[in-house]
Amino acid sequence: MTAPARVLIVGTGLLGTSLGLALNRADVGVEVWLSDLDPRRAALAGDLGAGRVGAPESGPDVAVVAVPPRATPMVALTLLRLYPHCSVSDMASVKSQPQAVIDGHLDVRARFVGGHPMAGRERSGPEGARADLFAGQPWVVAPGSFVGAVHLDRVLELVRLTGAEPVVMSAGRHDEAVAVVSHVPQVVASAVAAGLVSATPSALDLAGPGVRDVTRIAASDPQLWLEIVTANAGPVAVGLSEVVDRLTRVRDALSELAANPDSSTGTFTDISTDRDIHERSESELRALLVAGNRGRALLPGKHGAAAVEYAVVPVVIPDEPGALARLFVAAGEAGVNIEDVSIEHVPGQPVGLVELSVRPDQAVELTDALQRGGWRVH
Amino acid sequence: MTAPARVLIVGTGLLGTSLGLALNRADVGVEVWLSDLDPRRAALAGDLGAGRVGAPESGPDVAVVAVPPRATPMVALTLLRLYPHCSVSDMASVKSQPQAVIDGHLDVRARFVGGHPMAGRERSGPEGARADLFAGQPWVVAPGSFVGAVHLDRVLELVRLTGAEPVVMSAGRHDEAVAVVSHVPQVVASAVAAGLVSATPSALDLAGPGVRDVTRIAASDPQLWLEIVTANAGPVAVGLSEVVDRLTRVRDALSELAANPDSSTGTFTDISTDRDIHERSESELRALLVAGNRGRALLPGKHGAAAVEYAVVPVVIPDEPGALARLFVAAGEAGVNIEDVSIEHVPGQPVGLVELSVRPDQAVELTDALQRGGWRVH
Repeated sequence: MTAPARVLIVGTGLLGTSLGLALNRADVGVEVWLSDLDPRRAALAGDLGAGRVGAPESGPDVAVVAVPPRATPMVALTLLRLYPHCSVSDMASVKSQPQAVIDGHLDVRARFVGGHPMAGRERSGPEGARADLFAGQPWVVAPGSFVGAVHLDRVLELVRLTGAEPVVMSAGRHDEAVAVVSHVPQVVASAVAAGLVSATPSALDLAGPGVRDVTRIAASDPQLWLEIVTANAGPVAVGLSEVVDRLTRVRDALSELAANPDSSTGTFTDISTDRDIHERSESELRALLVAGNRGRALLPGKHGAAAVEYAVVPVVIPDEPGALARLFVAAGEAGVNIEDVSIEHVPGQPVGLVELSVRPDQAVELTDALQRGGWRVH
Repeated sequence: MTAPARVLIVGTGLLGTSLGLALNRADVGVEVWLSDLDPRRAALAGDLGAGRVGAPESGPDVAVVAVPPRATPMVALTLLRLYPHCSVSDMASVKSQPQAVIDGHLDVRARFVGGHPMAGRERSGPEGARADLFAGQPWVVAPGSFVGAVHLDRVLELVRLTGAEPVVMSAGRHDEAVAVVSHVPQVVASAVAAGLVSATPSALDLAGPGVRDVTRIAASDPQLWLEIVTANAGPVAVGLSEVVDRLTRVRDALSELAANPDSSTGTFTDISTDRDIHERSESELRALLVAGNRGRALLPGKHGAAAVEYAVVPVVIPDEPGALARLFVAAGEAGVNIEDVSIEHVPGQPVGLVELSVRPDQAVELTDALQRGGWRVH
C-alpha cells in the first residue's frame, strides 16, 4: 500500500477544505496540513476540522494544490522544489496546460500527477466545504508521459481515501471532455444571461423556471471561469463553433419563415404557396429539438446512481388524514415495496394524485391489488 | 361583476386541467365543463376534480382553449361559431399569430381575448395538473384591437379567480418578451444538448449539475416547441442572432488564443510577445462573463412564491418493505396530515431519508409522536 501519511493542502477554498475534511478523520489515518495565502481562510478551514494549519517539519508525502487554475502550475512547481520526495497533485479544471508547464522541468516532472475532482457547489470558500463532497463522484487523475509509478499510486490512493472514484485519462482527453460537458455550457449560459441585460422589466417579469435553469451557472465567478476557459481555449473554441453553427442554421430558417408567414395556419383551409420554405424551416428546427432530446437523455442521473427505471402507478386518493397510510398498508399487504412516491397536492380539493414508483415487474400486481381494494388506480 | 358562471375548458392537458382544478371549487362558484379529443384524458381530468366532462346545454359564458399552439386559432374559431354569446380565451405561448387569424373573422373577433399563463411544469398531461399552478403567477391577457369590453372583463375576472395576477400587454410585446425569456433559452438549451450526442461515454461520465441545469428544458416535447417557436419566428430569430454574435466573438478570441499560447503562464517569469492577443481575448471573454452575471441577477426569484411553506420533518427509515407504511400510519395516528413527501434513496445503503412536509404548526407534534414511537427523526 502507498497510502500517504502526511498530506499538505495548499489553498483552502471550497475544494481544498472539502479535501481536508474528507481526509482528516480518525478512520482515514492521515495527518492533514493546511496552507493558504490568506491566513484567516486557512484558520477557518482548520477550525472547521479540515486539518492543522502549517506544514509538516519532515515534509508531506503528498501535496495537493487547490488554488485558482492560473496559479496552479507555479504553486505546483514551488512545492516540487521545496519537497524533493513529495508527490504533487492539483485540483484544477484544466489539465493539459499545467502539465505542459511542469513537463518543461525535467528533474521534477515525474512527481507531478494532475487531478480534477468532478464535484463542486454553487458556494465557494471554506464555509461551503463538505466532507462528502467527493463521495461517489468521479475524480479524474491525468498522469503525464513522464510520471513515476509510485507517485501515481500515491495520488490514486489519496483519491480513494476521499470516497471518490478515480478515473484515469490523459490530460488531452480530459480537456476535450470538460469542454463539452462543462466549459461550453458555461459560456453559452453567460451568452443567454447577457441577453437579459437589455430586456424590459415587463419581459423579465415573465421569466419562468426554464430560463432560470439555463442561466443559473452564469452567476459564477467571472475571474475563475476566465482562467479556466482561456486555459482550455482550443477545445472550447471547437465546441462553441458547433453551437454557433446549430443556432445559425435555426436562426436562418426562422428568419426565412418570418419573411414568409404561413397564410394557412389556423384556418380551416390548408393552402399555402410557401410549403417548401415552411417544411425546410421546420425540419431544421425539429432536427435540433430532437437532437437536444437525445443529447439530454445521454446525461447520467446523479453520479453513481445507475438510474433504475421504475414503473409509476398513479392512484387518486381522498385528501384526508390517514389516506396515505391506508394506501401504503395496502401496498405492503400486496407484498410490493414502494421505491419512491410523489404526491400531487391539490390544495382545496378533496382528492390528490399519488404516484407510486415500484419495480416494473410489480406494477401490474400492485395495480390489481389496489383496484380490488377499491382504490382508484389510473 | 362579470364573473363567469359556466366555463368550458377545451383540452385537458396540464394547463387545461390545472385551470379546471383552480376554478372547480365550492368557494369559486363556477360550473366547470371539460372536453378533450381524447375522452380518457377528459375522464381523468374529471376524476381529479377539474370539472364535469361534457358541455353545458345552455352554452358557456367563457370557453378557454387549452390545446397545442398550432390548433389554437382553429379551435377558438370553432367555439366562437358554436357559442354566439360566449367569450373565448386561450392559453397558448404565442399571441400575435392566433390573434391575426381571428381578427380576419370580423363578426366574432370582438369576443376573443388571448391569454397566456406564465406557469408550467416539466410534466405534461392531466396527471401533472395542480390547482395552485397559477397562484401568484403572472397571466398575460393580450386583448386585440377589436375586443369588446365585456369580454375582456370576463376573461380578466376568470384569470383572477385562479389566483393569478393578470398582466395586460399587447400580443406583439408579449411575443417579444417570451422570445427573450423563454423561446431563445429553449433553442439554445437544445443546441448545447445536441452537442452531447457525439460526446464519448467517458466525457458524459464527467457531466455535473451545471450542464444538467443548462440542458434540462432540452428534454421538452419537440412538437410543442416546434409549434411555439415557428409561430414566433421573427422575435426568436432576432434573439438567436444576438446569442450567435456573442458566442462568435468569444469563439474567435479563443481560437486566436489557442493559436498563440501564452509562453509565460505558470512560469516564474512573465515575458510574452503575445500580450496584445491575450489581453484582447481575455477582455472579450471577461465582458461576456460579467454581462452574464448582470443578466442573471436581473431575473426575479420564483414568481410571487405565495406557495404555502411547509415544515419538513426528516426521518431516517430502514429500506425494507412496509417501513413507509408504518411511518405514515404513525403520522396518521398522530393526527397529522402529510402534505408532501420526498425519499432520498441511497443505493446500497440499508437506510433511506424520508422528508415529510407538514403544516408548520404540526411539525413539533409530528416530531414528538414519531420519536416516542422509536423513529429516528432529525
